[in-house]
Formats: sequence, C-alpha cells, structure tokens
Amino acid sequence: MADSYGLAVRAIVRDEKGRVLLLRRSTANRTNAGLWEFPGGKVEPGEFFENALERELVEECGLQVRLVGVAGAVQTEASDVHVVQLVMKAEVSGGEPRLSHEHDRFEWFEPDRLPVETMIPEFRQFAEELAAGGG
Amino acid sequence: MADSYGLAVRAIVRDEKGRVLLLRRSTANRTNAGLWEFPGGKVEPGEFFENALERELVEECGLQVRLVGVAGAVQTEASDVHVVQLVMKAEVSGGEPRLSHEHDRFEWFEPDRLPVETMIPEFRQFAEELAAGGG
Repeated sequence: MADSYGLAVRAIVRDEKGRVLLLRRSTANRTNAGLWEFPGGKVEPGEFFENALERELVEECGLQVRLVGVAGAVQTEASDVHVVQLVMKAEVSGGEPRLSHEHDRFEWFEPDRLPVETMIPEFRQFAEELAAGGG
Repeated sequence: MADSYGLAVRAIVRDEKGRVLLLRRSTANRTNAGLWEFPGGKVEPGEFFENALERELVEECGLQVRLVGVAGAVQTEASDVHVVQLVMKAEVSGGEPRLSHEHDRFEWFEPDRLPVETMIPEFRQFAEELAAGGG
C-alpha cells in the first residue's frame, strides 16, 4: 500500500431549488467509469484548496460556486497514493453547465433522490446525509 | 461573516497503547484558552497538508507521526476567516514530548476517557466517535 497522501477537494453543489449536482464518470476514466460523483479534483502542488475547487468546477462543469461550509472528508485510493477527499458545501453563483471529457452526464438531483447505488462508494455517506435532510 | 476560507490540519495521534494525545491551550491564546485540542495547525500558503501537519506536530509537541487515515473535517471560525479543519488519524513514530508556548499541558487519554466537556466544541464529535470505538 502507498505511504503518501494527496489532497482533493469536492463540492456538494446546490442550485437555487436546493437540488444537488452530480457528474457521471465517462469511459475515459480508468476507474469508476459509469459511477456518479460530486464535481472537484486534485489540489495541485502549491495551490490553495479553494482555488483548486474553483478551477476544477469551471473545468469539469462550467460553473462558479460560493462555498457555504464543510461537509466532511473521506479517503479514496489511487494506484500510488491515498487521496484525502475534502468535501465542501456550495451554492451555484454563475456559469453555464457543460461537460469535460471526464464525464458523460450532468444532472441535478433532489437531495432525497440521489442515485446512491451508482455513486462512487466513498461518497455514498454524503448522499445518505443529504437524503436524511443534512448537508 | 468572513467569505474566505483557510485550511488547517490536525491529527488524532495514538501511542503504542492506543491512547490519544490532547494538548491544552494556554492563556497565550486569545481564543479557547484552557480547552483541549488535537495537535496541528494552519496549512501555510504553498505548503502541502501532510508537510504542514508534520511541521506543526514537531513545533507543538515534539513528535513525529505516521498517517494512517482520515477521520473527517469540521469548520471553525477565526476573526477574519472560516477555517476548514481536516482531521487525520496518526500513530506516533518518534520524538520526545515537549510543549510550545501555545499549550500548557500534554496528556495521553484512553479513547473512552477524553475530556469531552473541556475540548474545543468542534472537536467533540471526534471524541465521541473515539469513545464509541471508532476513529
């Protein structure tokens, strides 16, 4: 098992109706293709986590967001590194939805209707909290 | 309320007996003096979170640790910034306990004997998880 850690940051993004954004991983991904995830990604060396999230959201889904708090953190495993996934809460503040090659679908879900069974396993706990009225 | 976010990293450090390290904040601190906390501190601009934790642990308590996973994340408030507190799980790997001016006491607690009522409020949920056998 890897000994080193990387940091990634994700956002539970809500629209003005309170719906939650998920992206579905395309077959361009070596792992978890076909599974839904919260937008976000790796924090690059020297990059501040808030800027990393802002950059990833524009790249992955064309949206600007406003952070509203912390949802939690979980660990995922990449081939050579443990990844700490810091999950923030956010609201859309601008932009027009669009996809990168990493995803093949973009959808806003009611918080109690997230597709838990087809989400990346490590993120399911957040879906369950959202369904229970948390998050 | 502040609109910007800072990142801090903390560790739930266990010794070889499974006991958990807490430090008590000294009166040198403007906030939370007298309350117990997990060691750690701010991630400086450009600093990787793992290096920040390593640096803070040496500075605050003279210990080297090995990371073993992610415990979670909570938010605290400073005068001008929201602080995301990323809490990692760690084991002591070396060093000799000593204190900086920021703390006046250093103690290893059994996981079900943490002084929950006199901990920084945002960290109490981790104490409760430790008492319940988690973490």
